[in-house]
Amino acid sequence: MKNIFETERLRRIYPAYVDFVTKELFPTELHLLQDKWENNEPILRAKRETAKEAGLWAPYLSEEEGGLGLSMVEFGQLSEVMGTSVLGHYVFNCQAPDIGNIELMHMFASEELKEQYLKPLMNGDIRSCFGMTEPEFAGSNPVNMATSAVFDGDEIVLNGHKWFTTACDGASFCIVMAVTDHDASPYARASMILVPTDNEGFELVRNIPIMGEAGGGYFSHAEIRLNDVRVPKSNLIGNRGEGFKMAQMRLGPGRIHHCMRWIGICERAFDMMCERAANRELREGRVLGHQQTIQNWIAESRAEIDASRLMVLSTAKKIDEEGAKAARIEISTIKFYVANVLMKVLDRAIQTHGALGITDDTLLSFWYRHERGARIYDGPDEVHKASLAKAILKNYGL
Amino acid sequence: MKNIFETERLRRIYPAYVDFVTKELFPTELHLLQDKWENNEPILRAKRETAKEAGLWAPYLSEEEGGLGLSMVEFGQLSEVMGTSVLGHYVFNCQAPDIGNIELMHMFASEELKEQYLKPLMNGDIRSCFGMTEPEFAGSNPVNMATSAVFDGDEIVLNGHKWFTTACDGASFCIVMAVTDHDASPYARASMILVPTDNEGFELVRNIPIMGEAGGGYFSHAEIRLNDVRVPKSNLIGNRGEGFKMAQMRLGPGRIHHCMRWIGICERAFDMMCERAANRELREGRVLGHQQTIQNWIAESRAEIDASRLMVLSTAKKIDEEGAKAARIEISTIKFYVANVLMKVLDRAIQTHGALGITDDTLLSFWYRHERGARIYDGPDEVHKASLAKAILKNYGL
Amino acid sequence: MKNIFETERLRRIYPAYVDFVTKELFPTELHLLQDKWENNEPILRAKRETAKEAGLWAPYLSEEEGGLGLSMVEFGQLSEVMGTSVLGHYVFNCQAPDIGNIELMHMFASEELKEQYLKPLMNGDIRSCFGMTEPEFAGSNPVNMATSAVFDGDEIVLNGHKWFTTACDGASFCIVMAVTDHDASPYARASMILVPTDNEGFELVRNIPIMGEAGGGYFSHAEIRLNDVRVPKSNLIGNRGEGFKMAQMRLGPGRIHHCMRWIGICERAFDMMCERAANRELREGRVLGHQQTIQNWIAESRAEIDASRLMVLSTAKKIDEEGAKAARIEISTIKFYVANVLMKVLDRAIQTHGALGITDDTLLSFWYRHERGARIYDGPDEVHKASLAKAILKNYGL
Amino acid sequence: MKNIFETERLRRIYPAYVDFVTKELFPTELHLLQDKWENNEPILRAKRETAKEAGLWAPYLSEEEGGLGLSMVEFGQLSEVMGTSVLGHYVFNCQAPDIGNIELMHMFASEELKEQYLKPLMNGDIRSCFGMTEPEFAGSNPVNMATSAVFDGDEIVLNGHKWFTTACDGASFCIVMAVTDHDASPYARASMILVPTDNEGFELVRNIPIMGEAGGGYFSHAEIRLNDVRVPKSNLIGNRGEGFKMAQMRLGPGRIHHCMRWIGICERAFDMMCERAANRELREGRVLGHQQTIQNWIAESRAEIDASRLMVLSTAKKIDEEGAKAARIEISTIKFYVANVLMKVLDRAIQTHGALGITDDTLLSFWYRHERGARIYDGPDEVHKASLAKAILKNYGL
Repeated sequence: MKNIFETERLRRIYPAYVDFVTKELFPTELHLLQDKWENNEPILRAKRETAKEAGLWAPYLSEEEGGLGLSMVEFGQLSEVMGTSVLGHYVFNCQAPDIGNIELMHMFASEELKEQYLKPLMNGDIRSCFGMTEPEFAGSNPVNMATSAVFDGDEIVLNGHKWFTTACDGASFCIVMAVTDHDASPYARASMILVPTDNEGFELVRNIPIMGEAGGGYFSHAEIRLNDVRVPKSNLIGNRGEGFKMAQMRLGPGRIHHCMRWIGICERAFDMMCERAANRELREGRVLGHQQTIQNWIAESRAEIDASRLMVLSTAKKIDEEGAKAARIEISTIKFYVANVLMKVLDRAIQTHGALGITDDTLLSFWYRHERGARIYDGPDEVHKASLAKAILKNYGL
Repeated sequence: MKNIFETERLRRIYPAYVDFVTKELFPTELHLLQDKWENNEPILRAKRETAKEAGLWAPYLSEEEGGLGLSMVEFGQLSEVMGTSVLGHYVFNCQAPDIGNIELMHMFASEELKEQYLKPLMNGDIRSCFGMTEPEFAGSNPVNMATSAVFDGDEIVLNGHKWFTTACDGASFCIVMAVTDHDASPYARASMILVPTDNEGFELVRNIPIMGEAGGGYFSHAEIRLNDVRVPKSNLIGNRGEGFKMAQMRLGPGRIHHCMRWIGICERAFDMMCERAANRELREGRVLGHQQTIQNWIAESRAEIDASRLMVLSTAKKIDEEGAKAARIEISTIKFYVANVLMKVLDRAIQTHGALGITDDTLLSFWYRHERGARIYDGPDEVHKASLAKAILKNYGL
Repeated sequence: MKNIFETERLRRIYPAYVDFVTKELFPTELHLLQDKWENNEPILRAKRETAKEAGLWAPYLSEEEGGLGLSMVEFGQLSEVMGTSVLGHYVFNCQAPDIGNIELMHMFASEELKEQYLKPLMNGDIRSCFGMTEPEFAGSNPVNMATSAVFDGDEIVLNGHKWFTTACDGASFCIVMAVTDHDASPYARASMILVPTDNEGFELVRNIPIMGEAGGGYFSHAEIRLNDVRVPKSNLIGNRGEGFKMAQMRLGPGRIHHCMRWIGICERAFDMMCERAANRELREGRVLGHQQTIQNWIAESRAEIDASRLMVLSTAKKIDEEGAKAARIEISTIKFYVANVLMKVLDRAIQTHGALGITDDTLLSFWYRHERGARIYDGPDEVHKASLAKAILKNYGL
Repeated sequence: MKNIFETERLRRIYPAYVDFVTKELFPTELHLLQDKWENNEPILRAKRETAKEAGLWAPYLSEEEGGLGLSMVEFGQLSEVMGTSVLGHYVFNCQAPDIGNIELMHMFASEELKEQYLKPLMNGDIRSCFGMTEPEFAGSNPVNMATSAVFDGDEIVLNGHKWFTTACDGASFCIVMAVTDHDASPYARASMILVPTDNEGFELVRNIPIMGEAGGGYFSHAEIRLNDVRVPKSNLIGNRGEGFKMAQMRLGPGRIHHCMRWIGICERAFDMMCERAANRELREGRVLGHQQTIQNWIAESRAEIDASRLMVLSTAKKIDEEGAKAARIEISTIKFYVANVLMKVLDRAIQTHGALGITDDTLLSFWYRHERGARIYDGPDEVHKASLAKAILKNYGL
């Protein structure tokens, strides 16, 4: 499909990202996935330096901040390229949850917090995490939350239990969502508070084993407890009671970032599927790609990936022009649509690879495991479908 | 989803089409569908006059020819509006197979044929048809064909058997695809010949009963026999042996026209589904639209229709910029993709309507019956998927 | 798949039904479908006589009544055979809604009503219908109903509006469900009353056009109005206020009858698909059946039809041993499961036939149109799924 | 659904298996999955002793051999119970590949091999593996194979490369499929040879990392190399050249064993899904199970699992009565049908669990990873569908 979202600037910088990902990351990623984080971390740090030197660092940042000042439409297309490697976003410092925290702090953090935390984060010197989901409550209903933050003189005292705090292991700080105003209306109850992870009382209970792996460092999702954690009042991000409002502003772009990355995964899996189809012999003179079932999978995948990209970039364009809030419904749409395309494309790519597809000798099994969550995290399919339908039915008087 | 394909001109003329379709066609179409063609024809003729007077006639024609000289991207968006009514394309003289024949004759017919046939066709004074498919051969393999056209002095003598000759009943002429050069290479065997339907030997065997209706006039699909039909040599369209080449040029845009129209149907069915969901009571205070299953259908339909439109208009843009041939693969992609979305949307809309959905009291049952063919005509899904996959796998060395 | 539900008796009589259907019905059914009911009726009457003479009449009736006294498991297997022809059930007097009315009257009608109405119905001398669904209320919530029946001395006066009163056109009587006790608890409000169709005030408004056809006689679905219809009190069937209870008893077996018939349709469509696949040439030496996509459809259809039959006959066995009420949940299960298999098998069979599949030159288009309702009538999929899930979740304390 | 396959004997012994699995295995299995094989092995050995003492050991063995002499229909129902735990089959010594090797050696091994290898295998004192698949060849075409076995005096010399040699790590011997007669017709080329794993030249290259885990011991799948491995001629199992014939006899029951086990997994996942649906609160007074989408999943899963069981046990009955060869087509049918039901049920169960579903805090993620292979191992879906379709189309003359 024709790229109707190309820009002059993008045409200039795009090839460098493709080149970097292909030459610097593809050859090492499989090996890294099978090693421990502590062994991988130095290697990735070196890659990051190379990316910085090549002027490819954090392209979404403004030019003053060392980025390229891209529109969402432009960044989306780079993000797809990054997504073709499991290491792409990390190496260019575009990885969740840091990118979301950077955007958030940019808008709402005090100058002191920016100086102390945002700058090194933007520079890739530290990592961060975001503590929202609690095991005791359905994630689909975010206003249900038990973590509390009590203002006590110049301090805030936090107590609570979170999980799926992605990349907490090794992070310098966590932005914690906590109830500060229990009696306020549901959406005005919570606030966001920056909590250094070396704070007394901040307990990393475990890296949750997910799909067979607890992982470590950046590649992990923690269960944490906040036991009478004390931070200065100035660690409040934005206004008290505006936690949900800010979370919405953080989650909207967060979801489209995921969609962009998923399309990158789809393209890579698609490429692997075609490569396999063209080369795997069934018998003399007949390869997998001659089989009509495989052809069907290739054709359906191509159509669905193209559709996904057009949907995501149209949504990005709306965000660029009207803001993330105006594009709320489009974001819900692409969230469930692209997540499901991702599942289908991965499944077909695995089946095309046969037994090889379930081994860790290709990337497919990594994505199959770690992207099953795509239909769950940041709102399950069911919630986004309901949101979209209700917004539509409102126009019909419901 | 944001309309990223809007143009200044489109913004100007679009509302007039929406208005016409809504006010002039929606109120009459259900009634017409249940009456005979001979009763409907005068009503439709009057509507056509109104459309002409309003300057809405055949917008795809150049301005000199009385049209609006639209790009494919622009026409696509009007075609969608027309497609929301079962009468839309006909009333604006944009209906298949005439629109395809007009495009074809425009490019390849002699001046005499243009004067005698194309002009009144463009003006809506006569109708035409196109004779290609033969019952004895799989349509998916177009080079298999038994209809012959023998050059005999100044005349051509045709013999053969065709079916699915859409709108033959009442048409003034048929463009017949016939083998003129039996021993040429497969794709150079056939030619296109204009055959007046009042010619001796041109036999309309029957209007084929399709999904319960033989229909009549424009709403019919004929089985025909050519029994020693004689036409002057000058009725040859284009060059001898170039029938397939021209058929490809005719079919490419033809397929995208269908896709545009299908999206119009999807939007109308979607609107009916939402209307029903918002108003049909299950019990006091609970309507269908409160049910999560219905919400799922609405959300999935919205996503799939939006994806379809983006795919189709992107393809249209490519045709505008690079020509239909360059967009061959994209056209295959949207052909199967949109046809399947259409099936799903219609099915959900019917299920939402319950028993009402299978009656002829709404348009849904008409589309359900008459668009099942969308996955078959102009190439079945399976053929388009294989074409797409093979084109992709070529890049992988297959 | 092995037939694990065969019985000695079935082995004896089964071939005669297969034989009759194949030789007496297959050759005429397509022709009949394209003619009017008044022309078809005498032909069918003759077929019925032949069936009676061959001892194949109404096998579900007890032996005293002229039937074969079959178990549900046995009848199910014959019903499947009947279902392979669109005329099967009618010719053997096993057609809905008569079979349901026969079962109902057998259990609940007074001796007078049995003498006057049931006997000729069992004998095929008259036809009947059943008036339940009302256009103003969602069929999924049967207790919502506006038709009233007021006891007035020795008479009952009925007023109301019904639709989808199948086969009303030409029927001698209608069993009408009407509210007799407006203030009773919801499930005790309605009663069943036998209303002769020649009664003053019984108005057949129209045969509803469904999927393009209003049909006529047995092949029709009426909209009716009851305008101050008066019948004697003795026309009450069963006890006053027990209408819903009896409806449940009527609908349970009614649903399994449909499932059995659908499997017959599946088998016939499957046979047509295989026949086509084995014979339709794509090119020299290659037929449709060599294509892997077609093979997939055949394999998936075979598996799903086999699964359907096992499910239906297991349910029948439970009905035989424990009664229809005990099998309520199983009946809901097969209702939605088999209806969906039917849709898939028909769709694949049509696609395999290409353009021919949408014509009326095969039976597929008839079933495609007239069985789309299978997912709606007698309770839409959504209602049956919810019933099943709720029954299961009850065991988990919900 | 009614159990139409119950037997008197089964009714007697069935509860003991349910009891054992529930009380002895459910409480420990999650913990074991997260530990190393060497730590788990002694625990499992103790469980096996308990099972033996309870008379539950290897019920498929004849009574003389210490089993219960069950029919396939009976064993199938116990196998389902075992399958509800990830440890079930192992603890009762019914695990693949040992059960397949036991059946095979029973039929074809010499008395010496039986004495030396089969007896301790049946007794659970040793484990075994089966070397068939080779990475260089598509598993869907089993006659393509490069491993060779050359007869050299009294010895056989093996060279080759195998992978997916399940449970090789710690096994005492491997039954290797190797080409002995290169010039014979394709299906007469290979033989089966018993190779002790401590043989010089038998190299376990690695336990293949599959879906993130290399595993160990019984829970592993090895890549092996045979480097001039020498075994005595008497290690030949069955006749030379009959390897494929025996493989077919081994694989048929092997496939149905998988299907039975998968149904057990389905039932357990279904139970977890219902439990979660009934208890997970969305908000005060509303749990997941009140959501219609969840109800749909529960209903569809129930229907599909019931259908699967009926299909599998019908096939088992045919095997009991007519032998595995006669049921070849039914086995292909259930292989792809049940594998796909398994995927769907697991997927729905995970989605119902939300974030918890992708953690290793439940069994779902283990099955999600390790049963994705179900659609691949022992023949991918595509191969079984083609086999079934071709067998059917043969009856239509193709």
